[in-house]
Amino acid sequence: MTDSIKMEYSLELEKGFNIIAGPCAVESVRQMEIIGEFLNKLDIKFIRGGAFKPRTSPSSFQGLGIKGLKILGDIKDSYGFRVVSEVLDPRDVEKAYDYIDIYQIGSRNMQNYPLLIEVGKTDKPVLLKRGMSATFEEWIKASEYIAMGGNQHILLCERGIRSFDDYTRNTLDLMSIPIIQGKTGYPIFIDPSHGTGRKELILPAVRAALVLGANGVMIEVHPEPAKALSDGIQSLNFKEFELLLNNVKKLEQALDEDMVEL
Amino acid sequence: MTDSIKMEYSLELEKGFNIIAGPCAVESVRQMEIIGEFLNKLDIKFIRGGAFKPRTSPSSFQGLGIKGLKILGDIKDSYGFRVVSEVLDPRDVEKAYDYIDIYQIGSRNMQNYPLLIEVGKTDKPVLLKRGMSATFEEWIKASEYIAMGGNQHILLCERGIRSFDDYTRNTLDLMSIPIIQGKTGYPIFIDPSHGTGRKELILPAVRAALVLGANGVMIEVHPEPAKALSDGIQSLNFKEFELLLNNVKKLEQALDEDMVEL
Amino acid sequence: MTDSIKMEYSLELEKGFNIIAGPCAVESVRQMEIIGEFLNKLDIKFIRGGAFKPRTSPSSFQGLGIKGLKILGDIKDSYGFRVVSEVLDPRDVEKAYDYIDIYQIGSRNMQNYPLLIEVGKTDKPVLLKRGMSATFEEWIKASEYIAMGGNQHILLCERGIRSFDDYTRNTLDLMSIPIIQGKTGYPIFIDPSHGTGRKELILPAVRAALVLGANGVMIEVHPEPAKALSDGIQSLNFKEFELLLNNVKKLEQALDEDMVEL
Amino acid sequence: MTDSIKMEYSLELEKGFNIIAGPCAVESVRQMEIIGEFLNKLDIKFIRGGAFKPRTSPSSFQGLGIKGLKILGDIKDSYGFRVVSEVLDPRDVEKAYDYIDIYQIGSRNMQNYPLLIEVGKTDKPVLLKRGMSATFEEWIKASEYIAMGGNQHILLCERGIRSFDDYTRNTLDLMSIPIIQGKTGYPIFIDPSHGTGRKELILPAVRAALVLGANGVMIEVHPEPAKALSDGIQSLNFKEFELLLNNVKKLEQALDEDMVEL
Repeated sequence: MTDSIKMEYSLELEKGFNIIAGPCAVESVRQMEIIGEFLNKLDIKFIRGGAFKPRTSPSSFQGLGIKGLKILGDIKDSYGFRVVSEVLDPRDVEKAYDYIDIYQIGSRNMQNYPLLIEVGKTDKPVLLKRGMSATFEEWIKASEYIAMGGNQHILLCERGIRSFDDYTRNTLDLMSIPIIQGKTGYPIFIDPSHGTGRKELILPAVRAALVLGANGVMIEVHPEPAKALSDGIQSLNFKEFELLLNNVKKLEQALDEDMVEL
Repeated sequence: MTDSIKMEYSLELEKGFNIIAGPCAVESVRQMEIIGEFLNKLDIKFIRGGAFKPRTSPSSFQGLGIKGLKILGDIKDSYGFRVVSEVLDPRDVEKAYDYIDIYQIGSRNMQNYPLLIEVGKTDKPVLLKRGMSATFEEWIKASEYIAMGGNQHILLCERGIRSFDDYTRNTLDLMSIPIIQGKTGYPIFIDPSHGTGRKELILPAVRAALVLGANGVMIEVHPEPAKALSDGIQSLNFKEFELLLNNVKKLEQALDEDMVEL
Repeated sequence: MTDSIKMEYSLELEKGFNIIAGPCAVESVRQMEIIGEFLNKLDIKFIRGGAFKPRTSPSSFQGLGIKGLKILGDIKDSYGFRVVSEVLDPRDVEKAYDYIDIYQIGSRNMQNYPLLIEVGKTDKPVLLKRGMSATFEEWIKASEYIAMGGNQHILLCERGIRSFDDYTRNTLDLMSIPIIQGKTGYPIFIDPSHGTGRKELILPAVRAALVLGANGVMIEVHPEPAKALSDGIQSLNFKEFELLLNNVKKLEQALDEDMVEL
Repeated sequence: MTDSIKMEYSLELEKGFNIIAGPCAVESVRQMEIIGEFLNKLDIKFIRGGAFKPRTSPSSFQGLGIKGLKILGDIKDSYGFRVVSEVLDPRDVEKAYDYIDIYQIGSRNMQNYPLLIEVGKTDKPVLLKRGMSATFEEWIKASEYIAMGGNQHILLCERGIRSFDDYTRNTLDLMSIPIIQGKTGYPIFIDPSHGTGRKELILPAVRAALVLGANGVMIEVHPEPAKALSDGIQSLNFKEFELLLNNVKKLEQALDEDMVEL
């Protein structure tokens, strides 16, 4: 990737409302082709897909690893997507470099400092998710481990915090949008799929994120959620995703008039 | 109050986006006159003000009690406001009846069942705030103590839950808006003043509440927040409140076009 | 009750390791007679039993009310027990006065200030449970509402706080024993029945409470836990309670030698 | 280290009440010599000291790294201590192997799976601390990432969970001792230094851990806590540590008689 291209999508991420979509996990070439074709048709620019999956249990599906990265690389080449994918191990940062455009650091690794330092040495943007019980200060301090390596392309992503209520998978802290904007200059994203774990709550969360001025959202979409190897229950199917997208576009247009006044 | 008037504002509360505004505590006739005149000029229909204040420490200002209720009653008569005020003691429910239009039950009393039963025997709406660490199920079950007395005029109000982060006074759970709407038919309000404890976060919270379809918000406003006898730090002054109101109106207009599609 | 008797058991409560035992709820004369006879045989001095039950749902058993108090009064007369029972409503404080020796204020009512003020006007000890998400400061400040009425006979009772883990009913905060002892001069009790909600964890909790210097514990015991009208799952049956008691006595003896050195 | 020696201290760890003591961070040769001499005199077998420090801010002292490990190795050789030290990076596991006896995995890394897998490939015990908001199930599942590599020498260590109260640094969950013992066959340790962050609470926590049947505790001790490069506020000085040790020994003796009955 040339510097000019990198610069371009870095800028993209900092204006407008960006939608990162894709499956929880890369499962197969075929799956990613179907999803890639679908998202491309909808003019989605950022695709997500996990090659390395941090699962609570070691007996759950752990992702396709390097093979998964290669599948992502092919999709990227075919459609020109920017690829967002998680790394768990500092030794994988270099291996993943050629296949992805944005390194994702998951909640469990928000304070995995060697990993943060490693992605901080690269020139690719890093999407840093908030830890499950991380205060705003801890989250921002964690981002400093990335920045101190010279990499200032940091995106922060709220994905729900742990609370006493178990109706939702996590408690999506939408107020983190204005709080992070008040405390940092970094783009702030919302992950309503993990943040709520419930399909019917994704649209409201995205609408709120938009009006709150978030830089974007990350949404799980899968051709057949019921057959997904992970997180099927919170993934939208294609029809649901398209409805969501239409709704968001209308809201964006409606807000355009309002936005002038802010 | 005649039944037809009661019915009227009950219906009001169930459509549109209602703003309940006023000071944390009723402090004096003069204070309420200033606030009443200001809110009336802005066409605010619902005024709040605490006569009985549940304070963490018994040495903090506890409110003016019955005297405060009378001040509220006078303001109500002067301007035709609907008055929202908290009761703490089942023995005060009857005393407060003539002066207020909506009984507020605060977080600390969400599971004060004798109090819920007592307001459930009246014919006035009850605004039931969520307890500090109440699950959705507990909150809804608490509302059943009101409803079983025959009073179905229940408004639920999210005011922030207790979490591990102390940057904000509480963690305002905006997702409770679609969750409560999915689980009950009751109107849902948001109290961003207590929910965040920070003035700069009130506007974003109100904007999000509006787009999420909340039935309204409850906002603390005070002519001189720095001199307020309680919660001054989170109260808006008149200029800030007016700016917020203008912003909300613009957003409402912008959303009008969008709303058709929902 | 004469002042000398009252003084006597107040003092008792402040030395040694006191066991308050009994069913969650008073269910019938027969039930309380069986339990009373059993506890008396074991030389237990403090009996508990709920006449007014604060239940999450209004359709759950709400207790026998005044009838339950009378049953408690009879048991008290028969065996000379000190009776601990919860009040929920300030209007019941006077009604309960003759039947009970210690007013219990439950978690849900830790910040029910009119209720605290009302028991604070009496001359009977008050056992104030910690609220579900109450900080130490809030808990202590709540006790000041009792004390300011002149009633300094306050016992604090830790009963588990709300956390993210649902393996136990609550997270029993055993460290509250030394913390409360460092911050107040009040006796501190532990309620492992509600604090854990699991029978197998009651003995360990009681042993820890003893070594930490708690003034006592409150334990649910029922002749037939499976048939209890509330909280059966966490109640010990008679055999289990007796085993626990023997274990505690042995530990007390063992600690006697150690205690000299503290 | 020969297999027989390793086996020996693995067994040690599984019986009796083990005290792991030492500074938060290895700061210098001189510091460790002073501490080593002191702990050896007291017949402490397990020494702790951080060479790699996971600090919230990258501008805080990060530990001496390999140099720190070498200092630990020298102390180990001089006195025959078993050395417990934290690793953060899977690439450091091999480097640390020769200098330490027990790998410590800290709270922030409880779900750092590549790191767990890496220590799971070694033949040295691993002390796995509970994550800040980890449920028991997540903690145990995390241990499976170590075990699946063939390393069954796992010690679990409770170090306080994150709650709403900030009086203590964390909320030390002493009930995790019987809970973990009921759910796993692994030894369970308590870290009251991080678990409370307050020196005056360390002795009570250790006493409770002992009576609850914990396999040991991990305690921060420093010759001059006020000058410590990290966590000075929660470190015991030598005199305080010696008092604690005496108290624990007396309690152990007292419990010996009791233990027979359990």
